[in-house]
Amino acid sequence: MPVGTQATVKALTREDLESFGAQIILGNTYHLYLRPGHELIQSLGGLHKFMNWPYPLLTDSGGYQVFSLNQLAKVTEEGVTFQSHLDGSSHFISPERSIEIQQALGADIIMAFDEPTPYPSDISKTEKSLKLTTLWAKRCKKAMGSSTQALFGIVQGGMYPDLRKISAEQIIEIDFPGYAIGGLSVGEENNLMYDITEHIAPLLPADKPRYLMGVGTPEDLLKCSSLGVDMFDCVMPTRHARNGSLFVKEGKINIKNAKYKSDPGPIEPDCSCYTCLNYSRAYLRHLIMAGEILAMHLLTIHNSTFYQQWMASIRKAIERDIPFNMDWADSN
Amino acid sequence: MPVGTQATVKALTREDLESFGAQIILGNTYHLYLRPGHELIQSLGGLHKFMNWPYPLLTDSGGYQVFSLNQLAKVTEEGVTFQSHLDGSSHFISPERSIEIQQALGADIIMAFDEPTPYPSDISKTEKSLKLTTLWAKRCKKAMGSSTQALFGIVQGGMYPDLRKISAEQIIEIDFPGYAIGGLSVGEENNLMYDITEHIAPLLPADKPRYLMGVGTPEDLLKCSSLGVDMFDCVMPTRHARNGSLFVKEGKINIKNAKYKSDPGPIEPDCSCYTCLNYSRAYLRHLIMAGEILAMHLLTIHNSTFYQQWMASIRKAIERDIPFNMDWADSN
Repeated sequence: MPVGTQATVKALTREDLESFGAQIILGNTYHLYLRPGHELIQSLGGLHKFMNWPYPLLTDSGGYQVFSLNQLAKVTEEGVTFQSHLDGSSHFISPERSIEIQQALGADIIMAFDEPTPYPSDISKTEKSLKLTTLWAKRCKKAMGSSTQALFGIVQGGMYPDLRKISAEQIIEIDFPGYAIGGLSVGEENNLMYDITEHIAPLLPADKPRYLMGVGTPEDLLKCSSLGVDMFDCVMPTRHARNGSLFVKEGKINIKNAKYKSDPGPIEPDCSCYTCLNYSRAYLRHLIMAGEILAMHLLTIHNSTFYQQWMASIRKAIERDIPFNMDWADSN
Repeated sequence: MPVGTQATVKALTREDLESFGAQIILGNTYHLYLRPGHELIQSLGGLHKFMNWPYPLLTDSGGYQVFSLNQLAKVTEEGVTFQSHLDGSSHFISPERSIEIQQALGADIIMAFDEPTPYPSDISKTEKSLKLTTLWAKRCKKAMGSSTQALFGIVQGGMYPDLRKISAEQIIEIDFPGYAIGGLSVGEENNLMYDITEHIAPLLPADKPRYLMGVGTPEDLLKCSSLGVDMFDCVMPTRHARNGSLFVKEGKINIKNAKYKSDPGPIEPDCSCYTCLNYSRAYLRHLIMAGEILAMHLLTIHNSTFYQQWMASIRKAIERDIPFNMDWADSN
């Protein structure tokens, strides 16, 4: 799903997201808690209304950014104390507080507050983090009260298959409407990520969504879908677009490359996105070289459309039990 | 008309421009000549096709930027030698070269290459500049060949009414399909700009477009329309939008102001632009405080819509010979 850190998928409007069929987007609890604040968003009717997005919405727990943006975050069993990356102010988030913030934001799917295990971590540290994650998952569920939001549990356990299995069993026992695989795509080699996913996905209930957090490249989505994953989130299509790095069926191109200077063709000849239907590689290269905002907008539309069609093709291949072929996205 | 320096009106797509009824946009010859280059644009079918704009298009002559972006530009009767602000490379533009570049770009209206008189300038310097502008205007017309583009002449003469009159007479004698008033909105007081416009506009043929270059605020447009001006161009609505400065009927607001932090209303309650129909002041403030690209897009739509409706109201007041009232823009 497209990631909307600051209550917007960067450089896109709701209509752009509709144009390529985005069904759900993700908001970052950490960022929205710090700015503009979850109480403010709640007072204005919640995140759906605030950002003009009437479709499904997921918020993460804030845990990932708390740790990745704060080298000095201090963890106790109670929760995490950290400094705002914006102004250095001190904050405390516990499982209960994360649920409170996510309830104020009002997304349809919310995530348990976990301690993402850094990579690499030794087995003892990973085990400790796993135990804390299970403890916090129970407290998150308890804190839900009568909320009708769907709270997903998160499996940790680092790169240790045995610990992953223990974490999965403990989280499943708490019983959530969906399960996420956390702590991957954190710097490990791709094959290791695949191995852990292959090991853990079959352990998660087949009748509930399996969500692999923070993944990944188109190849990652294809591979991990084949391993049983149903949901992904990643900044890759939007962030790459802003750097001029564009996804095409043959791989990736960088539109800043001088060879596109006078190229009259679209980014991808048979792509049906707004950008490919209306603009040449030469024009898009000119816009990004000139630092134009419109470049970010147009390139993000292409990459996001590519990702949506890529996933649509994967779903078709699964439904029909046929090999994956990107060209099927558009067909019926 | 909206100004599209780099072959785009900043942060807007063609559909956005259509949404508020933009009929003509302006491209900067200086910028496009340096990057991506007029030959490149010509080889790709001209500026209309390059930027996906099938409606009327105007290019300036390049003169204004040559002087304003190059402190060391060297003028002779032949033309101007200057250094690129991008890479310091040396360039020469003459009246003939400006026409050649503008013909390659292929806009519907193109402008004579003039020497904009700086402000302040003494009478002797202004007179010299006026003479050069007349000489160059003749050479521009001659350089047009069989082109069907409409070449507009430009009146100079600084802040000296007598020189303005001489310039107008000389330029009109050359005979152009439209006339521009150049050398205003260059730092002089508003009343001086009005005085010169009031003096010069009636001297220009009533049956041809009168174009006041680089003007201005909504009040400037209203005042100068009443003085007989038909066309304006200005970066103000788009540039102000990117800084959070928004035009409303009562004047201007800055959306960054803390008082809008939790304001659930639109920028302007009865505005029918896409932004006002869909987003609150609180959300727009959040986006711009967070540095989001979408803020530039949404705020530019509002300001541009405001300017379009402002001019539409002026046209209605003129057609019906009734007092100006902004609220008439939407009515039939």
